[in-house]
Amino acid sequence: MWNCQYSDENFCICAEDIDTGGDASPSTSMLSEVARSREITIVGGSIPEHCCGQLYNSCCIFGSDGLLMAKHRKVHLFDIDVPGDITFRESDTLTAGEKPTIVDTDVGRIGIGICHDIRFPELAMLYEARGAHLICYPGAFNMSTGQLLWELIQRARYVAWGHSTLVGPFGEIIAKAGYQEITLIAEIDYYLIQLRRTNLPLEKQRRGDLYKLVDLERLDTQQGPLR
Amino acid sequence: MWNCQYSDENFCICAEDIDTGGDASPSTSMLSEVARSREITIVGGSIPEHCCGQLYNSCCIFGSDGLLMAKHRKVHLFDIDVPGDITFRESDTLTAGEKPTIVDTDVGRIGIGICHDIRFPELAMLYEARGAHLICYPGAFNMSTGQLLWELIQRARYVAWGHSTLVGPFGEIIAKAGYQEITLIAEIDYYLIQLRRTNLPLEKQRRGDLYKLVDLERLDTQQGPLR
Repeated sequence: MWNCQYSDENFCICAEDIDTGGDASPSTSMLSEVARSREITIVGGSIPEHCCGQLYNSCCIFGSDGLLMAKHRKVHLFDIDVPGDITFRESDTLTAGEKPTIVDTDVGRIGIGICHDIRFPELAMLYEARGAHLICYPGAFNMSTGQLLWELIQRARYVAWGHSTLVGPFGEIIAKAGYQEITLIAEIDYYLIQLRRTNLPLEKQRRGDLYKLVDLERLDTQQGPLR
Repeated sequence: MWNCQYSDENFCICAEDIDTGGDASPSTSMLSEVARSREITIVGGSIPEHCCGQLYNSCCIFGSDGLLMAKHRKVHLFDIDVPGDITFRESDTLTAGEKPTIVDTDVGRIGIGICHDIRFPELAMLYEARGAHLICYPGAFNMSTGQLLWELIQRARYVAWGHSTLVGPFGEIIAKAGYQEITLIAEIDYYLIQLRRTNLPLEKQRRGDLYKLVDLERLDTQQGPLR
């Protein structure tokens, strides 16, 4: 979360009312204004959100007209207990989001996950099945389990644009920021996705007769699974 | 495949009749004898197998009494076409196996995948759901896509013991061989699996209300999915 230090108390203090917007959410108002004035799409990291008495870890996506296109509430809360190292229970203060978030923007169809959401391949596979060009995972991993896992998992998800790394469809690193804050400009050639899927057609090679990932929201909305 | 060079012609020439055994399969006879005489469990890499007019890429698991406990036939065949770099179609000569393979041995419950099987997280997740302590992926990745992906994917699968790497439940490398043939002795503490699952209970954090991986063989056999 970029508008506050990562702690239970700060979640409450820094939470904004995103749905009301304006002065009730200075962080997203600023993002909206930047998206509009620069005419760019923004996946705006995450901030604590308060809504109806609940707190969420939420990421807003703004279109190049400055309008809020989608809001992802972290669906996998991070509860960890490594005695003597790190203990943290997001679920003590935060409420988990109720659905995956995928949105059609000027720069492609983008699936959103926040931090710990990246550890669940099911979410990425579900976005893939829904036709994502890009999956963005804003995150702030801790230094205990995070250092080992962050790059590793980002690369394993193939197309993941997280805290600081842009990864291509063969798991290759296209651009990577260091520890310090930086503006990184990199080009994403979506043609590569199609090319790699022609080179190595994993989708055809999947064994739908042995296993199947079911996208339950799609089932509920009668659209049926895409596979 | 360790008993032949990796090429279409060699698959035919070097294929053995594993089910008949004895002189019809010198490679597995040798593995069986070593398992028996040393009283060890062997996950015996893979060799081409001929059976009923078909060719398979198969991995045999021998118990410490020398008996064949299970045989995995590679379920995801490797077809790749990167023009000017590598083109190979296993499916031109090989037949894919019909089922996942998980086996209870003296050294724990082991799920088996061969080479390209590792690229499909569904197989590893299915083994996890069936209670695997260890997943073994004998493999011989090529140097085009392989160099980048082999370590990366092994680590992302958390517990994967492949060509040359033993990986723990937090994705950490426990032991790793180099390019050359080597005998590597390493200890696996299965307690770590339980400990890590207590530290970071990913299984509880999964969102079974949003997605579900269905193990179709389990459904067929009326045992129902384990999740």
